[in-house]
Amino acid sequence: MSEDIMKIAGFRFAGIASGIKKNGKKDLGLIVADAPVNAAGVFTKNLVRAAPVELSIERLKASSKAQALLVNSGNANACTGEPGAKASVDSSAAVAAALGIEAGLVLPSSTGVIGVPLPAEKIAAKAEALVGALSEESAMDFAEAIMTTDRFPKTASARFKRQREEGAILGIAKGAGMIHPDMATTLGFILTDAAAPSSYLRAALRRAVDKTLNRVSVDGDTSTNDSFYLLASGKGMKLNDELSKRRFEEALFKVLLSLGEQMVSDGEGAEHAVTIRVFADTEKNAKRVAHTIGTSLLVKTALFGKDPNWGRIIAAAGRAGVRFDPSKAEIFIGEDRVFHRGLPTMDAETEAKAAATMKTPRYEVRVKLGTGKAEAYLITSDLGHGYVSVNADYRS
Amino acid sequence: MSEDIMKIAGFRFAGIASGIKKNGKKDLGLIVADAPVNAAGVFTKNLVRAAPVELSIERLKASSKAQALLVNSGNANACTGEPGAKASVDSSAAVAAALGIEAGLVLPSSTGVIGVPLPAEKIAAKAEALVGALSEESAMDFAEAIMTTDRFPKTASARFKRQREEGAILGIAKGAGMIHPDMATTLGFILTDAAAPSSYLRAALRRAVDKTLNRVSVDGDTSTNDSFYLLASGKGMKLNDELSKRRFEEALFKVLLSLGEQMVSDGEGAEHAVTIRVFADTEKNAKRVAHTIGTSLLVKTALFGKDPNWGRIIAAAGRAGVRFDPSKAEIFIGEDRVFHRGLPTMDAETEAKAAATMKTPRYEVRVKLGTGKAEAYLITSDLGHGYVSVNADYRS
Repeated sequence: MSEDIMKIAGFRFAGIASGIKKNGKKDLGLIVADAPVNAAGVFTKNLVRAAPVELSIERLKASSKAQALLVNSGNANACTGEPGAKASVDSSAAVAAALGIEAGLVLPSSTGVIGVPLPAEKIAAKAEALVGALSEESAMDFAEAIMTTDRFPKTASARFKRQREEGAILGIAKGAGMIHPDMATTLGFILTDAAAPSSYLRAALRRAVDKTLNRVSVDGDTSTNDSFYLLASGKGMKLNDELSKRRFEEALFKVLLSLGEQMVSDGEGAEHAVTIRVFADTEKNAKRVAHTIGTSLLVKTALFGKDPNWGRIIAAAGRAGVRFDPSKAEIFIGEDRVFHRGLPTMDAETEAKAAATMKTPRYEVRVKLGTGKAEAYLITSDLGHGYVSVNADYRS
Repeated sequence: MSEDIMKIAGFRFAGIASGIKKNGKKDLGLIVADAPVNAAGVFTKNLVRAAPVELSIERLKASSKAQALLVNSGNANACTGEPGAKASVDSSAAVAAALGIEAGLVLPSSTGVIGVPLPAEKIAAKAEALVGALSEESAMDFAEAIMTTDRFPKTASARFKRQREEGAILGIAKGAGMIHPDMATTLGFILTDAAAPSSYLRAALRRAVDKTLNRVSVDGDTSTNDSFYLLASGKGMKLNDELSKRRFEEALFKVLLSLGEQMVSDGEGAEHAVTIRVFADTEKNAKRVAHTIGTSLLVKTALFGKDPNWGRIIAAAGRAGVRFDPSKAEIFIGEDRVFHRGLPTMDAETEAKAAATMKTPRYEVRVKLGTGKAEAYLITSDLGHGYVSVNADYRS
């Protein structure tokens, strides 16, 4: 899924093992800018927020600048009270000292088990080694260090142009479980060489997240730790006109959409990433129906069973709380219409074609509720034995 | 789960095989009253309603009387258009003719595969045999004939008293998949020998359903066919004062709660029926949090894994859209407090006791959001491999 990792002028990376994960895998990641840079973040809407989330929000509010993103996996440092808050402060202070920068310029993130205070002393003990490992080429080490139940590291990049100027965006994310269309969805770190004020970065990040990660659903749960950051080194193109902003946001959208799709594909035990696209009279209604279909357990198990089960899809639409005339509804699986005018249209050939579509890893289910043209979608995953195995055994 | 089946004066039962189910199992059930009796029904709120639901609603609206409940399994006759509507009319007419009563007194229900018109001719061919099989002793045949993915038939009964008078209620239900707290939850047939007007029966049935079946959740989906009926033969106690009504409704509540618990226990592949009881400042908030916890996939897989995962529970509460102070929240599994003042309270002994509770088939998780005393609950099931197997393979 990950292409060759693009370099972004002004940023270096590291990822090492610090002993937080008991299996000895990489669990400590760091991204450092050459100088303090403009930064923005969007965070979980969950009422229960982990210590590093609270600290990062506070630091971003204070200055809108950052120089380092410090991430650990293996421990979420959530529901850990005062000792947890202290651990986030102490571990970021240790790394700041090793970097020779102010602690307020380090934004910490954590992911993993909750309820256990972060062992700050393990991070402090490795702070020098972590800083020593920094290089422009180590983005993949960072991507691996932030993984928990992920089956593969997630990166995406895109370029954008204005006349002869070119800019670049790189995104690195983690996320498999606890993914849901309610904001920042797990951890993501987006870097660009563009120059733009923090206020614009925040608005652009929020717009892109709303159109991408907020439409991705694996299991309907949001975590205590979800955070997405955007840092701009300012070494490249100035985003100082409408055209450059549009091009930048198109590229940002691509990067976030790719990361979102990778998350669904990796959705704990998932075999399919399926876009549920709904057309209705209003976007709000379309969104509501797409959400109800995309989170229906009966639909998700039918996706796992590769069963063109239009009945579960129309039944889910029918309970979404949106008025429509079922006798005018249509359902397509890929290009094949399996439901039309309140009735299944399935002959043996259509059924076989729809079933073949459902064997592919990435396809679309389209639902038209009458003649409305307003559109919304949700990218969902199938729910199979893999999901159960991962989630019944993993203590998150 | 089912006790010895109570007889209700004035009702006879039958359950036979008519060839709708391909495996030759019983698929046609009939309950007949000695004469037209007062009747009430509550039906699915799904916008997509099956033909027999439409027909039964129409017939109950016309007269509030019924004499026969005709049920088939193996075919839901939903999303079947005009041919399906005709099949419901024709099959109930055939049984009415065999009974020698008006067709309008027959209330049909169907459950099973959707999108295929009901084979009315199979029911018509067996109408005489079905009527011939009627007896006071055949309630279990009826209970078996209405099963689809159910692992066991579901019946419950209760008596109620006023001085020396006694009344009786018998309930027979089917339901495993597509169970959700949104009304009548699958098919249920409640019979009593009491005497009461249809308007009271409807109000009492709705009150009881709201407190029982609407608080039962297996997978969050509601079907196109959900229907619950209450018929009163009038051969026994008259419900003509507050005391008799209260006693009747207490018994009705017990019957419906038992049927609901049996449904959760049978929840396709479920091993545990777990009551999520939430205390908050208002009942509405308590209900919302109970619903979010009880339908969380991460919580339900943790229940399957017998993992006292307070983290997933508090995280689900945190995204329910209800304001509370996590540092004042408490979580109990059985009698053991696993979360207190924003922190886990789990020592090895508490963890072992909570894990032992989670091995039992029926237990309670209590969540207190601060000092509020308003209360709500949801009975949910675990989500394990059995659920996936049943739902990935079964075409509903």
